[in-house]
Amino acid sequence: MSKKVLIIGAVALGPKAACRFKRLEPDSSVIMIDESEIISYGGCGIPYYISGDVSDARELQSTTFHMVRDPKFFQEAKGVEVLTRTRALQIDRAARKVLVQNVDTGEKKTLDYDKLVLATGSRPRKIPLPGSQLENVFTVSGLEEAVRIKETITKGAVGKAVVVGAGFIGLEMAEALTDLWGIETTVIEIAPQLLPGFVSQDMAAMVEQVMHDNDITCLTEEKVVEITGNGRVETVTTDKRKIQADLVIMAVGVQPNSELALEAGLQVSDTGAIVVDKYLRTSDPHIYAGGDCVEIENLVTGKPGYFPLGSMANRQGRVIGTNLAGGTDTFPGAVGSFVIKIFDHGVSGTGLSFESASKHGFDAIRAFVVQFDKSHFYPEKDLIILELCVEKNTGRVLGLQGLSTNGDSLKGRIDAVGVILPQKPTTKDISNLELAYSPPFNSAMDALNNLGHTAENIMLGRNVGIGPAEFARLWENRDKKDVLFLDCRDVENALEFLEKYPEKWRNIANESLEANLAKVPEAETIVLVCNTGGRSYESQLKLRKHGKDNTLNVYGGMKLLKKWGIDI
Amino acid sequence: MSKKVLIIGAVALGPKAACRFKRLEPDSSVIMIDESEIISYGGCGIPYYISGDVSDARELQSTTFHMVRDPKFFQEAKGVEVLTRTRALQIDRAARKVLVQNVDTGEKKTLDYDKLVLATGSRPRKIPLPGSQLENVFTVSGLEEAVRIKETITKGAVGKAVVVGAGFIGLEMAEALTDLWGIETTVIEIAPQLLPGFVSQDMAAMVEQVMHDNDITCLTEEKVVEITGNGRVETVTTDKRKIQADLVIMAVGVQPNSELALEAGLQVSDTGAIVVDKYLRTSDPHIYAGGDCVEIENLVTGKPGYFPLGSMANRQGRVIGTNLAGGTDTFPGAVGSFVIKIFDHGVSGTGLSFESASKHGFDAIRAFVVQFDKSHFYPEKDLIILELCVEKNTGRVLGLQGLSTNGDSLKGRIDAVGVILPQKPTTKDISNLELAYSPPFNSAMDALNNLGHTAENIMLGRNVGIGPAEFARLWENRDKKDVLFLDCRDVENALEFLEKYPEKWRNIANESLEANLAKVPEAETIVLVCNTGGRSYESQLKLRKHGKDNTLNVYGGMKLLKKWGIDI
Repeated sequence: MSKKVLIIGAVALGPKAACRFKRLEPDSSVIMIDESEIISYGGCGIPYYISGDVSDARELQSTTFHMVRDPKFFQEAKGVEVLTRTRALQIDRAARKVLVQNVDTGEKKTLDYDKLVLATGSRPRKIPLPGSQLENVFTVSGLEEAVRIKETITKGAVGKAVVVGAGFIGLEMAEALTDLWGIETTVIEIAPQLLPGFVSQDMAAMVEQVMHDNDITCLTEEKVVEITGNGRVETVTTDKRKIQADLVIMAVGVQPNSELALEAGLQVSDTGAIVVDKYLRTSDPHIYAGGDCVEIENLVTGKPGYFPLGSMANRQGRVIGTNLAGGTDTFPGAVGSFVIKIFDHGVSGTGLSFESASKHGFDAIRAFVVQFDKSHFYPEKDLIILELCVEKNTGRVLGLQGLSTNGDSLKGRIDAVGVILPQKPTTKDISNLELAYSPPFNSAMDALNNLGHTAENIMLGRNVGIGPAEFARLWENRDKKDVLFLDCRDVENALEFLEKYPEKWRNIANESLEANLAKVPEAETIVLVCNTGGRSYESQLKLRKHGKDNTLNVYGGMKLLKKWGIDI
Repeated sequence: MSKKVLIIGAVALGPKAACRFKRLEPDSSVIMIDESEIISYGGCGIPYYISGDVSDARELQSTTFHMVRDPKFFQEAKGVEVLTRTRALQIDRAARKVLVQNVDTGEKKTLDYDKLVLATGSRPRKIPLPGSQLENVFTVSGLEEAVRIKETITKGAVGKAVVVGAGFIGLEMAEALTDLWGIETTVIEIAPQLLPGFVSQDMAAMVEQVMHDNDITCLTEEKVVEITGNGRVETVTTDKRKIQADLVIMAVGVQPNSELALEAGLQVSDTGAIVVDKYLRTSDPHIYAGGDCVEIENLVTGKPGYFPLGSMANRQGRVIGTNLAGGTDTFPGAVGSFVIKIFDHGVSGTGLSFESASKHGFDAIRAFVVQFDKSHFYPEKDLIILELCVEKNTGRVLGLQGLSTNGDSLKGRIDAVGVILPQKPTTKDISNLELAYSPPFNSAMDALNNLGHTAENIMLGRNVGIGPAEFARLWENRDKKDVLFLDCRDVENALEFLEKYPEKWRNIANESLEANLAKVPEAETIVLVCNTGGRSYESQLKLRKHGKDNTLNVYGGMKLLKKWGIDI
């Protein structure tokens, strides 16, 4: 039996649901409405449009075969009617009607539905900030605003920019402004780290290092209090300083567009997201919702999660499309896998970071591995840094994050863990994870497998050590403490430090430790260090065997410290 | 309580088990014996040593910190005693003794053990072939033989080479000979395809195309019957021709070294592999075995599987090391994930290919997806071709294979499915697989997700079509049949074919199909084609809606046909 489907919102989830449904039920009718003139575009591509990687905004709105996805396209190719510049004002659930208005003419009408889909998405969060209405202060709300930002830059009047917020969009926009346009860019973040809530503090420090290496200033734990200027922005004032700026991008997160749902009496969470079941139905069985306007289960914490990502919206759109046609597809939730390009680095993660895990009440430890993504004897290779977050008593893997100059290689490892996270894997599962192997692609013992081993050894108290932040604190206070640093590498590697820090640095290569036990220095704490934390771990075991329990292993070794930004 | 561990074999699994055990039980003793002088090397790196990517054979034997893993290294760094040039002759299980012999001096002695580990590996399979003892006929048995191969090539007397066998090692060796050394190389394979048993026939055709593009001749369904020459090889004779050759590499697979185990009365399978339980114990609880000499469960078929791979050996080595120290780690089996570099392409897979699935009794279908690995609007991107093999009635995913010029990107997708294969996922799990997303790394709807969708649509009979081999047959016989080819792309794409094949080729762009139904040609069979199989699928649905059920969709479209080698 043919039915009438009405979809509110035509960017990502809406079109996907509409087209899938029409393929399954060609005889049913679908109307899709959107406030904007521009529909069905890849919003996640906006930073690459700003950067110039994507030259024309229409590319973000085109199919792979270069056809612009406009209302005509949807009508002719997909049989979906689209009303642009049309706002939904009110849902009458009892009568199954939606009151809509043309935003240009003001004309109102009602549209009937058998099934309604809310694909209302999200909007940039606004913070109450004096001066945020000034010219050249932008958010990244959609393609139309993106075009205005690019026009502003193209005019050449932007020498300095400030990005407020160091989430994904903030960092991507900062790179876009700097990379092609050479704009002197400062990122300001109120939290004590970049990508707060997504990566650990240590991983964030490494990201900050990459930003710094690419001439972007990052100011964390700093609050913007005012934007000033004569009509156009000139100065951004924080609680610590004043910064000149010709352009400001506000990127302090997004919030779900759920007002329409709330007014219609649908269940909306305290955080403002529409509540849906695993079939992506709202509290009204005739109304579906998905994408940036809903919350779904976080499959790691078991609590509601908010994942405003284009990939989620697309996949959820298909599920809704199927279910509109009488199907029973489910979308049980997400673990929050992400990846972001930061200049020549990829940063990727899944599940919880160390600090997020603590916040969610987990007693967690973390392990680091620094290893090449290919066999170490293979000529072309990139270093990959991974951090695994594990529940201490159970060994359950809670999350994984990484950084590498080969983002594809890194993302492969993150995804391999991300897809099994819902099954609550343990370190043993990571140790034994079967990954395709040959030397041009990885090591016989992949970095991920080694990460599982390392985490298990840390969890069981065999590998006792410190991360880079803890090392930095210890190093800074080294003169106040009875601490010595024992370099477990060959003397050629250690020499520089032996000469620079004769009071504090010692050297016995791990391979000759058993023969040189008498030379092991005495101190309250001996910090063991090598290139990546592996040889120093072996030294720790050997010293423990001989009754020396006062050692701390530097996880990830000198390579991790360097990436973190410690220059000793 | 300290114990004596004896390990037979010191290449991959042996050293890993030895070192792991010593780290857990530093007070126990480990003796590791090996027939060869060279131990603990990355055998999978041999093709890259031959190709020159790895300049010195010792690099394959070195740690990441450039220390050669020789007996001295194992003694000093790991506390493991190694006896090289030492062959195990006999195991006395009752007395827990092994009779060993020095292969140089002939001297024999017995070594006691509390626990014994068989890490005897595999050896190249030999086929009874006249002339295989001639000079310059090699197998790839180990590092010493590899050095001899490279010496032979370096002398410059090799202009033409034949590689017998088109498995992983065969293809890698063929590339090594061709790429740097410019040797005119022919690969001869008795099976009707390259990589038999690993990839589907269609995927193998694409691999053959890559080999062909790099000037390697591949002869399949061809049997080598004789090698001839005056002392040194000169000619390889097959059942179809004679081929000149200065060098022959025999790479027709490997067989487990299980004679010692068999003679000791341990359980050995019909295929000659040592049988172990999930703790990697043989039928004697005091004897462990792993790596290339054992069989483990194939977690897709549930039957015994043989996976001679360095990565398996390493991971199994750690499990054995743990269990030698009283642990209960398990190695439940494998799904057979693999990756291989073929010139500028990566070829990777996991689980069963379409033909393997049939051989194992599954009623299977397969789906293809051809898509960029990044968002289509992102400038740097590579095409990725994926083939999913699915059980027809249940939707259970049996395997996945792919080919791409970005091997890292491809491998990431393969691994993401490989790690969940043991849980028997269905197409719905692939459709909804959560992969980290941003435009520089993938599409909002990843190629894998689209592959899940496509497979489901094929399985449910919505998407009815043909693969490239079936297309090739149909195309060849097009004049004998009442068949027409309807190009669903824009006229600019179709024009070339309309002009070349005016009798057979028609064109109605999918987007204007509903308006041009009257122009749909009449024929017994209408073959629908577009770039990648997506638009033609939509056309199929539209035609079906209007009662036209005589269509076949070309899976993967023109792009797949081109990669396969069909030049129409």
